[in-house]
Amino acid sequence: MQNVKVIIWGLGAMGSGMAKMLLNKKGVDIVGAVGRGSKIGKSMYEVIGVERGDRPEVLIGSAEDVITEKAADVVLCCTDSYTKVAFERLKFVLEKKINVVSSAEEMSYPQAQQPELAKQLDEIAKANGVSILGTGINPGLIMDLLVVVMTGCCESVDHIISRRVNSLSPFGPTVMTEQGIGITVEEFKKGVETGHLAGHVGFQESISMISDAIGWNVEKITTSMDPIVTDVDRKSPYGFAKAGNVAGVAMKGYGYIDGELKIEMDHPQQIEPEQVGVTTGDYVIIKGTPNINMVNSPEVPGGIGTIAMCVNMIPQIINAKPGLRTMIDLPVPRAIMGDMRNLIDPECKIVK
Amino acid sequence: MQNVKVIIWGLGAMGSGMAKMLLNKKGVDIVGAVGRGSKIGKSMYEVIGVERGDRPEVLIGSAEDVITEKAADVVLCCTDSYTKVAFERLKFVLEKKINVVSSAEEMSYPQAQQPELAKQLDEIAKANGVSILGTGINPGLIMDLLVVVMTGCCESVDHIISRRVNSLSPFGPTVMTEQGIGITVEEFKKGVETGHLAGHVGFQESISMISDAIGWNVEKITTSMDPIVTDVDRKSPYGFAKAGNVAGVAMKGYGYIDGELKIEMDHPQQIEPEQVGVTTGDYVIIKGTPNINMVNSPEVPGGIGTIAMCVNMIPQIINAKPGLRTMIDLPVPRAIMGDMRNLIDPECKIVK
Repeated sequence: MQNVKVIIWGLGAMGSGMAKMLLNKKGVDIVGAVGRGSKIGKSMYEVIGVERGDRPEVLIGSAEDVITEKAADVVLCCTDSYTKVAFERLKFVLEKKINVVSSAEEMSYPQAQQPELAKQLDEIAKANGVSILGTGINPGLIMDLLVVVMTGCCESVDHIISRRVNSLSPFGPTVMTEQGIGITVEEFKKGVETGHLAGHVGFQESISMISDAIGWNVEKITTSMDPIVTDVDRKSPYGFAKAGNVAGVAMKGYGYIDGELKIEMDHPQQIEPEQVGVTTGDYVIIKGTPNINMVNSPEVPGGIGTIAMCVNMIPQIINAKPGLRTMIDLPVPRAIMGDMRNLIDPECKIVK
Repeated sequence: MQNVKVIIWGLGAMGSGMAKMLLNKKGVDIVGAVGRGSKIGKSMYEVIGVERGDRPEVLIGSAEDVITEKAADVVLCCTDSYTKVAFERLKFVLEKKINVVSSAEEMSYPQAQQPELAKQLDEIAKANGVSILGTGINPGLIMDLLVVVMTGCCESVDHIISRRVNSLSPFGPTVMTEQGIGITVEEFKKGVETGHLAGHVGFQESISMISDAIGWNVEKITTSMDPIVTDVDRKSPYGFAKAGNVAGVAMKGYGYIDGELKIEMDHPQQIEPEQVGVTTGDYVIIKGTPNINMVNSPEVPGGIGTIAMCVNMIPQIINAKPGLRTMIDLPVPRAIMGDMRNLIDPECKIVK
């Protein structure tokens, strides 16, 4: 079998990270990279900062130049957070008869907020004999799939709390700006009002994924977003929050079933949590038969986690039945420590 | 769609528990029960201790009488721990063109110790257009599938520790005898030598499942079994261990890859662990990129967990492609809080 052939669309922190991870794996080649602006025409290796060695050159190009019919087994789309914005790009790839893994948060369960676009993606994928999945660390695993897995050993479930207390310190300037690190409370409130500050994207998707998986009909989902105001100066590699200003964002999400609050999402993210005695971690707390009281501490880091989830799901999406797939439809994610070709169903290989 | 039709084979603690759980679910009927000895001819409701109400009677019968061609969508086989012993029963059901969920520990990954029987089961299932799965709390979830899921957010994995520290106190007289609770150290050693004391069954299966999932070639698996000798008298509802005698079993398993110890299983089980300051819990400890340091405490109780896993996987095994399936092939387990029929692919329904 030929190596698994991958094209990466978007060479920001996520796409570059996936490229680097793939270069350390067996049985898989990066055969194309799509970028924009000044990156076009450059070597992918130069942009991601890895020695090319004796590997064939990969020159960054436009989507039209790089993504041609059946040019790869899968395209990793790392360009967006929202289904609506990603849609045309995803459609473009599917129509070239190539499978897609998208890191867009909303694509982890597009049925939640974009049912019409989800339906279209499903139809386009089926018409072209390929499949598409959105995944990442969260949504994609920590606050949804992991919860679903743990309900699997429950006879019944009454109430779910999914909590992720994480540090933003490892992230770069873009995340600092997106999450409002260092701004005043007034600026934060204005940013939320104008939609400039997004905070975490994914509660609608995580709550819908859990409730659909276990058979609860969610009738209402609400979310809230508040500033985490620091009492002391906090400094991370790329962020600084003066005492009295914003050091992070406290995101909450609530899913109601039959008028009752059944699913709670609690996701405070901030720089330098340790400085104020906050222990980071991922929590799954299920009230049911039996109760589940699980914690992974410290939390799975967001960047590495998303990179790994997208790469590790490549075999599953290549092997999947055509259509729109989600993490609750497919076999579980897993690290790939052997030759990736061993995981591929020969009948599903595109580049034979 | 007709309700999902289930036959239960074996009405011990596990089979009875599954029956009770199913009676609380929507869209599913128990249409048959297979038992032996004095149970034959009795009402299943009487044996499991549940009011029949206006449900149709289910009389316990022999396999030949109850399990006829396409009489149900799935049979829950709760009769054995070992593939070799269960084989003829499983074959019998598959040849009646009915799907199977087995609670036999070795059936969670029969490829590990019975590759020839696993191949035969796969062939028989395919020839009859149905599928078969072995599952339970452990093996099935805690010390294997959950580990695999958490490797899914890892770029690479160096070493795995899977630990389950559990209490045997909730279990009845059979488990007390099987695990040697209350016997002397001499008796314990003799029991291990003669194969009379089995301890936990499943390390070969769990280690093989993890290593196959992530692409490690296991070249050697070793296991050990030692008595947990108590310093104080310990008393549980069905067990008693005098100071100096056996209060539990410390099971360990080791998987070697390329000459290196890569997978460690650590599973001490005992009555009244709290009495000697032992905190129970399920642990997943992965050394990799990133590290994972997860604990669920107290542990998922073994009985309820196995009952729930077997019942909750019914939709997945009905929908599966024909053949022998394992937990790493199928979509993740999940609680079933809605109508079970909503989870069934109409094309895969046997009793239309």
